[in-house]
Amino acid sequence: MAEKTASAGPRLRVVLETGVAIGPGKADLLEAIGKSGSISGAGRELGMSYRRAWLLVDSMNKAFDEPVVAAHSGGKGGGRAALTDFGREVLDRYRRMEARTEAVVADDLEALRKHLNPSSSA
Amino acid sequence: MAEKTASAGPRLRVVLETGVAIGPGKADLLEAIGKSGSISGAGRELGMSYRRAWLLVDSMNKAFDEPVVAAHSGGKGGGRAALTDFGREVLDRYRRMEARTEAVVADDLEALRKHLNPSSSA
Repeated sequence: MAEKTASAGPRLRVVLETGVAIGPGKADLLEAIGKSGSISGAGRELGMSYRRAWLLVDSMNKAFDEPVVAAHSGGKGGGRAALTDFGREVLDRYRRMEARTEAVVADDLEALRKHLNPSSSA
Repeated sequence: MAEKTASAGPRLRVVLETGVAIGPGKADLLEAIGKSGSISGAGRELGMSYRRAWLLVDSMNKAFDEPVVAAHSGGKGGGRAALTDFGREVLDRYRRMEARTEAVVADDLEALRKHLNPSSSA
């Protein structure tokens, strides 16, 4: 994930209304919850505290008219969690928007990259 | 500007290489410099300190193989500044990427907006 974040390319943040947005962080979190089956496992994978991961999930669950993640209690940080069908839809829509964005910005992005100052590269 | 930032829609940040990116803030700054003819005027328009505006311009001037803004000294914060031809190109390319992104994400964004929880709206 860190490598992906650091690489060249577009980063898309989608504001749905004031104060409600989905960006790479929430999308990666949903994806990691889908894979790991828990909020704490997803947080660990992304280098995110359980508290932060839980707050992000809670904000998404409250922002929409149905939950994106179904969590089952199992002690502090120990419960299982899964994407709901709607959560999967949110993630799929975000990934599609991201892929389409990459495609339509590719030419301009490459043109700008050709003007990077070689001496300023880290 | 504040209204635009708060409205629903995509926000595009383009990472050119690690540590070098252009997003809505730098694009708005370039545009405001082009209009106001000074870094301090542009900063005021965007509610940004002169120091922050100057640092953002400096980072862009150093990131590329030619400057995006040509500044003429005229006392602290009082000089004139103009977009170079290349600075205009950077701004135009960013605005084009932004417009294309808006177009390709519109359907998915609208579908997600229909699932917003009415009771969570501020």
